[in-house]
Amino acid sequence: MISTSRPASRATRTLSKGGEPSSTDRMLSLIAAAMDKAGVMTETIRLVDFDIKPGVTSDEGDGDEWPGIRQKILDADILVFGSPIWMEQPDSISKRVLERMDAFFDETDDQGRMVSYGKVAAVAVVGNEDGAHHVSAELYQGLNDVGFTLAPNAVSYWVGEAMGSTNFVDLPKVPEAVQKAVDILARNTVHLAKLTKDNPFPGEK
Amino acid sequence: MISTSRPASRATRTLSKGGEPSSTDRMLSLIAAAMDKAGVMTETIRLVDFDIKPGVTSDEGDGDEWPGIRQKILDADILVFGSPIWMEQPDSISKRVLERMDAFFDETDDQGRMVSYGKVAAVAVVGNEDGAHHVSAELYQGLNDVGFTLAPNAVSYWVGEAMGSTNFVDLPKVPEAVQKAVDILARNTVHLAKLTKDNPFPGEK
Amino acid sequence: MISTSRPASRATRTLSKGGEPSSTDRMLSLIAAAMDKAGVMTETIRLVDFDIKPGVTSDEGDGDEWPGIRQKILDADILVFGSPIWMEQPDSISKRVLERMDAFFDETDDQGRMVSYGKVAAVAVVGNEDGAHHVSAELYQGLNDVGFTLAPNAVSYWVGEAMGSTNFVDLPKVPEAVQKAVDILARNTVHLAKLTKDNPFPGEK
Amino acid sequence: MISTSRPASRATRTLSKGGEPSSTDRMLSLIAAAMDKAGVMTETIRLVDFDIKPGVTSDEGDGDEWPGIRQKILDADILVFGSPIWMEQPDSISKRVLERMDAFFDETDDQGRMVSYGKVAAVAVVGNEDGAHHVSAELYQGLNDVGFTLAPNAVSYWVGEAMGSTNFVDLPKVPEAVQKAVDILARNTVHLAKLTKDNPFPGEK
Repeated sequence: MISTSRPASRATRTLSKGGEPSSTDRMLSLIAAAMDKAGVMTETIRLVDFDIKPGVTSDEGDGDEWPGIRQKILDADILVFGSPIWMEQPDSISKRVLERMDAFFDETDDQGRMVSYGKVAAVAVVGNEDGAHHVSAELYQGLNDVGFTLAPNAVSYWVGEAMGSTNFVDLPKVPEAVQKAVDILARNTVHLAKLTKDNPFPGEK
Repeated sequence: MISTSRPASRATRTLSKGGEPSSTDRMLSLIAAAMDKAGVMTETIRLVDFDIKPGVTSDEGDGDEWPGIRQKILDADILVFGSPIWMEQPDSISKRVLERMDAFFDETDDQGRMVSYGKVAAVAVVGNEDGAHHVSAELYQGLNDVGFTLAPNAVSYWVGEAMGSTNFVDLPKVPEAVQKAVDILARNTVHLAKLTKDNPFPGEK
Repeated sequence: MISTSRPASRATRTLSKGGEPSSTDRMLSLIAAAMDKAGVMTETIRLVDFDIKPGVTSDEGDGDEWPGIRQKILDADILVFGSPIWMEQPDSISKRVLERMDAFFDETDDQGRMVSYGKVAAVAVVGNEDGAHHVSAELYQGLNDVGFTLAPNAVSYWVGEAMGSTNFVDLPKVPEAVQKAVDILARNTVHLAKLTKDNPFPGEK
Repeated sequence: MISTSRPASRATRTLSKGGEPSSTDRMLSLIAAAMDKAGVMTETIRLVDFDIKPGVTSDEGDGDEWPGIRQKILDADILVFGSPIWMEQPDSISKRVLERMDAFFDETDDQGRMVSYGKVAAVAVVGNEDGAHHVSAELYQGLNDVGFTLAPNAVSYWVGEAMGSTNFVDLPKVPEAVQKAVDILARNTVHLAKLTKDNPFPGEK
């Protein structure tokens, strides 16, 4: 099991202001519930509430709130990266977070392993219409490049019909196919995170 | 007006076999009808019916049927590139056609202009769910790289709700938003093709 | 000619701080010089110097500096969108700007034409290694979706060899192939912008 | 250890004809050598030598040579997917293979696990200039969607400077950074494949 004393974290991000309900939040809540059944505690971070500075290091100083978020990610075994879809692409806040994780390339142990090695990532993508797989493709590439492992079927997503404007948060009922994908994501990701935690990736020695 | 004696062509492609109705065909027919109103004659080429060899030149010999298709594209003023969505990406036949147009890079006049210069491209993308904008992004990049001009809103697309399996060809009625996008595409593309035909892009001297 | 009293603008963006030289700036300067020869005045906007709020409208209030940038874009006939490459994708500030232009969808005249119609976009993409074409693909899709026209070969780019760390700004000499691409971009974009300004896209009636 | 009696396979693909040396082959050979050190036997399949029909099932009949390739993939524990870069995108043969693996969605055991579950994929991407990360993004998404697991840093790639024409196969010496990436890929992928083989992903009950 993944230790609950070192709980799996989630990097939730949403552009919703204040107390507004968010479609991305709804998807992340479904994943959290599925992980909870597997004994994994989760914490949600609403990235829009933080001042994450542009930059290439892990601490850009001057009010940069990335260091705290980064620490939560490193304290957890699983990262569920939630992104809304904008222009059928990942949104600017998701991109900012990927950019900050770029620093992981230089943050290696004496065996050449990045600080993220052994952690498993999954993604949650929600939009009104179209773009979910492309967002997952971009996130997979970014997250894999900076050291995360990906279990099979590592995305839970929802989009409506082309040119529609329905929000996932407003659906009266979670579609069965979405719930099934959430369950698969949680099952595979938790299984793999336990394996990679108990059996660290080898270093270059 | 675009001359009907040098009619605008379309490179339709679809994986449908034999006489099966195709969702991509339906979208291309809508575009053809809209262009017809503007006096533009169109011709549909079902790429799946041709043996387009892999390769880097405009004629790979040995039964290669690309040369004939290439000539039709060059004889026309407009290229409407239809692609189904596979794995939320352009399909392999669309990619093959883009690869063959790669040869345009070396097919320039004495002013450095590719054979495609002055021609306007638009795309039609249809799938069961998700991926339309990413397909258009890839096609825009490929087509622009090989010399085509793009009018605003150069895509007509349809996809259904996430994880759905409805086919566009089976919709009882074309959604109003799709018809509107088709009309905009036809209007803008025909307008621009006339301009770029009557006013050729300048050469390097 | 494009009126110099209504000069073509550029939306430069870079993460360089203060007075540091920027590779993206260098590429934009090359384009500006090429456009200047064609009588086009340009203005460079360093997006990193502005506080562009997240949001879906053209004015998110509360210190949002997007409205001023938006006005400059609308006052110009050409938009040259410069983006560095991060994680082989467009950077977060470029994405933010695309998101804000999403509002153009609802900013149409009584003929259904977006405020951006008739404007021609081009892109400048610079990075240490890899990713330029993908960045151009994403920008083409976003810019075309929000109403911009694209001339053939609408990108000027430079990247170094895989896994390298050379900066474009540090190259002792601009590579001949880059200068050629810049000249083509400027020639085609200026030609097309004049055509689409003098011959507005038709409306829906 | 991964059983050598059930050796890890590779799906090499290249457009090189006959006996010509291929850049993609060179990269795959480096990976094979690194895996060999870890006791993993590999087999290379040159996809261009096979007639892989378009289609949605695992056997399209009529001379379709996909079934034999599919079986080799399923017999192995690791899939190294090699793709050249065309138009800065995956090439048409790589796309065809992804399309055929689409059938895995319906090929599940009584616990809902696809035939590919537990297998680890990695990718090798080689081109003259630009596009490697985007190709890896597309392959990651496609391979993950059809059930493969991805170890950290699952890509080995090489591209030259922008607009260059150097081939990887012609480099007098493999760059140190490439060899390092190859070693990391082999180390992580082999480690993870052993874990997921010995500890199958859980089913839905």
